[in-house]
Amino acid sequence: MTLKGIAASPGIAIARVFFLSAERFVPDRQIVPDSSAEILRFRSSVSVAQAEIEAIRISTEEKLGADKAEIFEGHLMILEDPDFIDAIAMKIEEENINAEYALHETSQSFVELLQGMDDELLRGRAVDIEDVSGRIMSHLRGTPHMDLAGMSEECIIVARDLTPSDTAQLDLDYVRGFITEVGSRTSHSAIMARSLEIPAIVGAGSAVLDIAPHALVVLDANQGIVLVNPSDDELADYQAKKQADDLRRTELSRLRELPSLSKDGKRVELAANIGKLDDIQRAIDNGAEGIGLFRTEFLYMGRSTLPTEEEQFTSYKYALEKMNPKPVVIRTLDIGGDKELPYMELPKESNPFLGQRALRLCLDRQDLFRTQLRALLRASRYGNLKIMFPMIAVLEELLEAKRLLEEEKQKLIAEGVELAEHIEIGMMIEIPAAAIAADLFAPEVDFFSIGTNDLVQYTMAADRMNETVAYLYQPWHPSLLRLIRFVIQAAEKEGKWVGMCGEMAGDATAIPLLLGLGLHEFSMSAGGILPARELISQLNQAEWSSHAVQALSMRSTKEITQFVEDTQKGVTHHD
Amino acid sequence: MTLKGIAASPGIAIARVFFLSAERFVPDRQIVPDSSAEILRFRSSVSVAQAEIEAIRISTEEKLGADKAEIFEGHLMILEDPDFIDAIAMKIEEENINAEYALHETSQSFVELLQGMDDELLRGRAVDIEDVSGRIMSHLRGTPHMDLAGMSEECIIVARDLTPSDTAQLDLDYVRGFITEVGSRTSHSAIMARSLEIPAIVGAGSAVLDIAPHALVVLDANQGIVLVNPSDDELADYQAKKQADDLRRTELSRLRELPSLSKDGKRVELAANIGKLDDIQRAIDNGAEGIGLFRTEFLYMGRSTLPTEEEQFTSYKYALEKMNPKPVVIRTLDIGGDKELPYMELPKESNPFLGQRALRLCLDRQDLFRTQLRALLRASRYGNLKIMFPMIAVLEELLEAKRLLEEEKQKLIAEGVELAEHIEIGMMIEIPAAAIAADLFAPEVDFFSIGTNDLVQYTMAADRMNETVAYLYQPWHPSLLRLIRFVIQAAEKEGKWVGMCGEMAGDATAIPLLLGLGLHEFSMSAGGILPARELISQLNQAEWSSHAVQALSMRSTKEITQFVEDTQKGVTHHD
Repeated sequence: MTLKGIAASPGIAIARVFFLSAERFVPDRQIVPDSSAEILRFRSSVSVAQAEIEAIRISTEEKLGADKAEIFEGHLMILEDPDFIDAIAMKIEEENINAEYALHETSQSFVELLQGMDDELLRGRAVDIEDVSGRIMSHLRGTPHMDLAGMSEECIIVARDLTPSDTAQLDLDYVRGFITEVGSRTSHSAIMARSLEIPAIVGAGSAVLDIAPHALVVLDANQGIVLVNPSDDELADYQAKKQADDLRRTELSRLRELPSLSKDGKRVELAANIGKLDDIQRAIDNGAEGIGLFRTEFLYMGRSTLPTEEEQFTSYKYALEKMNPKPVVIRTLDIGGDKELPYMELPKESNPFLGQRALRLCLDRQDLFRTQLRALLRASRYGNLKIMFPMIAVLEELLEAKRLLEEEKQKLIAEGVELAEHIEIGMMIEIPAAAIAADLFAPEVDFFSIGTNDLVQYTMAADRMNETVAYLYQPWHPSLLRLIRFVIQAAEKEGKWVGMCGEMAGDATAIPLLLGLGLHEFSMSAGGILPARELISQLNQAEWSSHAVQALSMRSTKEITQFVEDTQKGVTHHD
Repeated sequence: MTLKGIAASPGIAIARVFFLSAERFVPDRQIVPDSSAEILRFRSSVSVAQAEIEAIRISTEEKLGADKAEIFEGHLMILEDPDFIDAIAMKIEEENINAEYALHETSQSFVELLQGMDDELLRGRAVDIEDVSGRIMSHLRGTPHMDLAGMSEECIIVARDLTPSDTAQLDLDYVRGFITEVGSRTSHSAIMARSLEIPAIVGAGSAVLDIAPHALVVLDANQGIVLVNPSDDELADYQAKKQADDLRRTELSRLRELPSLSKDGKRVELAANIGKLDDIQRAIDNGAEGIGLFRTEFLYMGRSTLPTEEEQFTSYKYALEKMNPKPVVIRTLDIGGDKELPYMELPKESNPFLGQRALRLCLDRQDLFRTQLRALLRASRYGNLKIMFPMIAVLEELLEAKRLLEEEKQKLIAEGVELAEHIEIGMMIEIPAAAIAADLFAPEVDFFSIGTNDLVQYTMAADRMNETVAYLYQPWHPSLLRLIRFVIQAAEKEGKWVGMCGEMAGDATAIPLLLGLGLHEFSMSAGGILPARELISQLNQAEWSSHAVQALSMRSTKEITQFVEDTQKGVTHHD
């Protein structure tokens, strides 16, 4: 039997399946003799659940970073929400009923209410309430919550969907992959799989229920297919594929310490994007020549107050020391819009991607911004720091950000704090206005870093998270290539360098064109660095420079993709 | 006494005030002997309210167009919503109480629930529920709803806010302007004021309550100030200003039949943007040389089914005949995203401005699109039709739209329908990708029309409806001027013409630059045409052509604005 689904995280896994039951317990309604005792029983189950979630939260934060742990903050908030918890206690008291039934009824009515909402965030909260209620229920019933952490052999998890609690407890020593019935590339379980680098297929449909318990499956998450009880030939075939995969990984690892050079000797820099401190080791392991994008949001998430200057300083210092003397480009806070912080009251926006995000918010909330700038400046002497400002559209924003930085610098100097002699200052190019007017910005910065994810989204006026307009996510559309070329030319005129930290920087179709356009630094997720280094070593920069100019006047993405493909084949033929 | 507020709709008015009471009746709770009779009394009040709203809806549609009448569709839906109406009846029955109290309590709880929502649309619905409840209440109590239509002398309305019902009933023979306590430039009352061309100040704060009933006020909505009980000098001063205003309008009207020529004889076209059929007469009265943007959305709104081909044909034919031989640029449906149709299930999007809008939706829903194309083609022989496609980002979209048009054309020809010999086909340039690659599109169209409202919003990545990023709505930022120039150059290379139908086209600071950049057609709201014609007649196109090139390399909007201002002063000095 073969199933198809959405390839959510690449790789091949071969193992027996382990079913996570999706059935929910539906309790009977029973009259209890002593409702006060019942309430006490309920409240103590809540306390146990609370302690348990807090433990998961801490371990998730350690293993996966603060942003992934944030969801459990939400769970804890539900447990502290009187609208929810007191409503259940009241129901027990008023109707003299058992806690299980009161919990079930109340959580169901909350879930139904939330699911009926127009607001996507609120609908999402329904899952959290189910997750939390299931946990309280298991304590009320004395049945322990399914202990995913207690696995003892290799397996591929099969589930309707993985809740955040489920995923956080996966034991990576045993879980080789997972398959879910529902979900999309952007659902929670898909994102977690990519972050954990576990092969995963989501949205495989109800056919997953036809897989027999403990059946042997081949999970080919490169192609989005699952072979259930594969034939001997299929199995041998996939074992070979998996071996080839592993071998290739070993071969690539030989490039780890080598510089990134094109075939004709042009040197570029391959750097890593990181979102938490743990990523630094992965970047080093994958041969990163620097950190091209250090997202600082994780410092602000999964907590109930703003991080102090000292906390930030410690993190920045750690990263700079660990990478020293390699460069670390730290991006100032990119929050607001769709990324919320529970302790900051940000107004709800109709189009958050076009709203008060990132630097726009920082210039409005200068207290918060100045704290980050001070922490960065203080950390500067521990390594090779470059500071980067996101979401700049007009020159005034850049000048204002630089002014605030200079003010904090002078204050620190006056306080006798030692700083690095020179800190490069750069900006993201992710808004069309900034790309089109890059020549106006170039004299004011040391570098640009092109953020293609946002630049494509704004240039095409297509939300990159919205599936109905996904066909417009075309990073190598002529209009994008023209913008990139203009940005690089504008920078070079002023002797400045240009990096790229969007997904395009690690894409095999885009790399030849970007090399040809003269991009200096490619920053990507760590896993992409070695394949990119290998690819670049096979490309002739001078040749791709003229190919890229040709591509600029092509009529469509399709034409350009075909052209790159054909040209690469040609290059291989003439070898 | 002088009050300040937000100038929502320009003009000067001098009259006595008329207070719209904002107090709400709070009924007592009473036990009724016969709840069935009470429910009957309630339901009959609902029926009367229903008939009344339907009448307002129809008259609003006639006076102001279907889009303005749409809100009353919403009111009718509330009256038909069992969640609301049956909840009240049930409350009367269960508690044996009077209908007034049941209505009051139920509507209050709905309003509070909705006001607590994150979703802006849902919060907005709270106002509708209050409006509808007030109307039912007035029938229950036998007190007629305040009859704004029954005014008998000139007045300036003062209110906490104007509900849609209030605004729809204003008697324009008597209402000279209005002042509200709350609201912003984008609130319902502000939009209505501009559409009715009545001077209005909104958000004047609680000080409006200090105005004595029937006090004489001067409403200067050019500057956002209100003089209460003006001194004789002030009154004389404002009467003179008002006279000057009126005089200027008379003078301008002399330009009505004249061509639009710059001082050095360059001819451009000044056209009107229209959103309903009534606007055509206003366009003609204001000397429009064509319709530069006919928004077809009104045909689809305020109804419960899609408009038929025949209905659309009738409207297009009417417009074409009325303007003939002047051109009418009809834009195909621009719905989706933030503009919803009750009878089409459009998915809720997180960033509707970056979602499945306009042509993107039409290419997905071809049935709907083909109907409109057929209606347009059939109407073509009654005047000078030009068809324009909105929201195009990539060439494939344009080619697909043209293919569908051609298919319908061939079908009609096969059916023996007579069509115009030539119909110009154009596209909006409102997405950065299309502007940057305008040279790829130019061979495939007869004209471009630059939609600055959206082009600015996407180029700056700033929602134009979001006040926190309003500082980024900079239509004459260097990046925008560069895009506009590139679009015009790309079109001219192919011998095509370029119009503009965003707000920028009617802006006095922008017009000199646009004239200088070589824009061929300026389309704006009718009221702006004559002032624009006057301004253009004072400008030297050749001179502004070099001024505009200078502006392209300036560093900021501020610099450009200052430059235009200084240059214009200079031009005046040398006259």
